Amino acid sequence: MARFRINILGCGSATPSLRHQPSSQVIDFRDNLMMIDCGEGTQLAMRRMRLKFSRLNHIFISHLHGDHVLGLPGLLSTLALQGKTGSVTVHTFPEGIELLRDVVNFFCREPGYDIIFEPVSHEGGLVYEDHALTVTAIPLYHRVPCVGYIFREKEKPRHLKGDMVKYFDIPVSKLHDIKMGQDFVCRDGTVIANSRLTSPSDPCMSYAYCSDTQYDERVARAVTGVDTVFHEATYIDADAVKARERGHSTASEAARVALQAGARQLILGHYSKSYENEDMHLVQAKEIFPNTILANEGLTVDLL
Amino acid sequence: MARFRINILGCGSATPSLRHQPSSQVIDFRDNLMMIDCGEGTQLAMRRMRLKFSRLNHIFISHLHGDHVLGLPGLLSTLALQGKTGSVTVHTFPEGIELLRDVVNFFCREPGYDIIFEPVSHEGGLVYEDHALTVTAIPLYHRVPCVGYIFREKEKPRHLKGDMVKYFDIPVSKLHDIKMGQDFVCRDGTVIANSRLTSPSDPCMSYAYCSDTQYDERVARAVTGVDTVFHEATYIDADAVKARERGHSTASEAARVALQAGARQLILGHYSKSYENEDMHLVQAKEIFPNTILANEGLTVDLL
Repeated sequence: MARFRINILGCGSATPSLRHQPSSQVIDFRDNLMMIDCGEGTQLAMRRMRLKFSRLNHIFISHLHGDHVLGLPGLLSTLALQGKTGSVTVHTFPEGIELLRDVVNFFCREPGYDIIFEPVSHEGGLVYEDHALTVTAIPLYHRVPCVGYIFREKEKPRHLKGDMVKYFDIPVSKLHDIKMGQDFVCRDGTVIANSRLTSPSDPCMSYAYCSDTQYDERVARAVTGVDTVFHEATYIDADAVKARERGHSTASEAARVALQAGARQLILGHYSKSYENEDMHLVQAKEIFPNTILANEGLTVDLL
Repeated sequence: MARFRINILGCGSATPSLRHQPSSQVIDFRDNLMMIDCGEGTQLAMRRMRLKFSRLNHIFISHLHGDHVLGLPGLLSTLALQGKTGSVTVHTFPEGIELLRDVVNFFCREPGYDIIFEPVSHEGGLVYEDHALTVTAIPLYHRVPCVGYIFREKEKPRHLKGDMVKYFDIPVSKLHDIKMGQDFVCRDGTVIANSRLTSPSDPCMSYAYCSDTQYDERVARAVTGVDTVFHEATYIDADAVKARERGHSTASEAARVALQAGARQLILGHYSKSYENEDMHLVQAKEIFPNTILANEGLTVDLL
């Protein structure tokens, strides 16, 4: 079982090329799949990466540009043909919902599952929560309204020390509270400090997806404290003017965001198709933020 | 320059697989590209086959199922980003035009070329004509309204016999009429038969695209006289019941159509993804119609 794995399905920009597909990623969080963006060809990329359609329940759209959305009708149709049950919730801006619903109703008739559209505010905010995870939208700064998404594991229970549990003969009914950090009070009133009964919980992993956006310190502030940051790096330094004009970032700017946010690692992506490869993106980012890797179709990154 | 070339971009059925893409073909007729159907991923298939976006001016849609249409918004967006000028005409059923126009307007803002939607009647009829070619829609018999398309070269001028033209000292002003079959009348009134002055014109090639459809004799009648017939062969004989239930054909049925129509060659395609390969399709079709080939992504067929 993947604990918290990022799957890169597509990391190209507006025009798909023979090297890079349009944007899409799938977060495999304890075997539940959550997709971010769904460019044309995403369903095929899912097959290539052997990601099970049946486990996909949420799709988060960053913004309403075709290269982040146009794979949606085909994917939802295929889910229907594959006998998907339950529901898929598409989180997107309100202004896109009517059109997307019309398209899905037209091309994906009588699916055996519910297709739910949940509006996302341009200002961001909490968009999803379960017992173990939250997903929060944060504003990005592109030519059109755009949000990033932060996936945060919730605080996890502390690990019980088996020998101590035995030694103090702690009843099963108390174990949950102790795992959550409570001390134990013996029958005679003695208080056993939680630190004697448990060891610290595993660290909580977090992931931020920031695409598309120009460089902005507010993005760095919003992702401060996040472990792994994906930040678009459409261009290299030589094309910084183009980046600014088009509401995109350079690799160096992505690195500055990761540095300012105190991230542990940075993943670059959303490359312009005008480069033969992304070697220069990597060099320029690493000068500022050494722990940088390049996204690529088929790449998986486990957050550990 | 291709004279009349069929390019197979995708020949899978409803669900794209790692073996076959959804439906799309491009007819390269004297360097003008005309597309038939545009499933998801078609723009990428065009790149793979090095078909120039700038030369694409007409797209003919067989029916409004996603696997034949959903690549359209992405393709039209990319044409805009590539600086396409002039126009692209999408020929499709009236009931799809409003939705497709809405999608294109939403995702493909301010293209530098005109996107024209031309309604196609469910009953078929002439949908395109220029000095050298006609495109005619013919009804097919699927679960929903569906048409095939016949591409027919117009009759071509006969070849002048240079030595005879010299011998009879024919003025240039008369050559066009002679190429079109007229006799030549000398100044003294002698009539020189056209057959002495010209040799026969090249044969007129024709191509019929028949997908999606169940087996129907009316299809065979409609494509009678066509040189090369593409006919869907979603299933093999063992799945004939499924074929009928779903409005599709078996490979044998496709072969019967080609035989009844007196075609020269048959191309099979639109394969169900339930088979590991299409060997059996080919065997079963060839028993009925020997000159059968299998469509495959990347295949080109020159009509000569």
